[in-house]
Amino acid sequence: MKNEHLSNSTIFPLGEKLGTNFIGDAYLQMILTDSSPLDAVIGNVTFAPKARNNWHSHKVGQVLLVTGGEGWYQEEGKAAQLLKTGDVVNIPSNVKHWHGATKYSWFVHLAISPGETNWYESVEDEWFDKL
Amino acid sequence: MKNEHLSNSTIFPLGEKLGTNFIGDAYLQMILTDSSPLDAVIGNVTFAPKARNNWHSHKVGQVLLVTGGEGWYQEEGKAAQLLKTGDVVNIPSNVKHWHGATKYSWFVHLAISPGETNWYESVEDEWFDKL
Repeated sequence: MKNEHLSNSTIFPLGEKLGTNFIGDAYLQMILTDSSPLDAVIGNVTFAPKARNNWHSHKVGQVLLVTGGEGWYQEEGKAAQLLKTGDVVNIPSNVKHWHGATKYSWFVHLAISPGETNWYESVEDEWFDKL
Repeated sequence: MKNEHLSNSTIFPLGEKLGTNFIGDAYLQMILTDSSPLDAVIGNVTFAPKARNNWHSHKVGQVLLVTGGEGWYQEEGKAAQLLKTGDVVNIPSNVKHWHGATKYSWFVHLAISPGETNWYESVEDEWFDKL
């Protein structure tokens, strides 16, 4: 766990390493799971350089708040967007997409998730390495 | 604006200075106001040392995510709780409370607000100085 490279990004806990639906080293710490006052849970997601999730979609959508590092967000059929600390992404419902770290930076975001997720194929090196 | 003391806390923009319902220098930048996918708006709130909001309550509740500094959260009839970076506060609906910075630290939190706010009296120096 190379989180000595995470300077200024470890606001919320790193949590546990994720397995399924991710490539590379990614970590999740849920920070809010109460059923009220939000109809949503909040997780802190940390990606090591090159780590990313598989293509997926959210039935209700999702909000990402970037708290550290640099990463990518890409919707199917669109160019990948570079994300930096302070960026906010409003992911529409049922839009296939992925997110993860850049090649050289860790990437940390909060994910506010009001509904279920459908998972699809992984983001292979052939695709990722062209970014 | 003494945000040179805000090292490592300026993840989201400082925004505009708040007037009504606050004592001291506090700032708000809304970072999410879209009506979907959350039934809530998200603001980044920054308090200079000693700044705090008036007593208030939220019809639906509110979630605070502390991203920098140290502050206080106090519900009516209870002891004030010291908050630090990484703390999460789930504020129940219709509970009278206030939050703000400590005497010597800036304090930065995200506020996720699903409903309206009712404002009451200010937190006077006589009260605050005893903390």
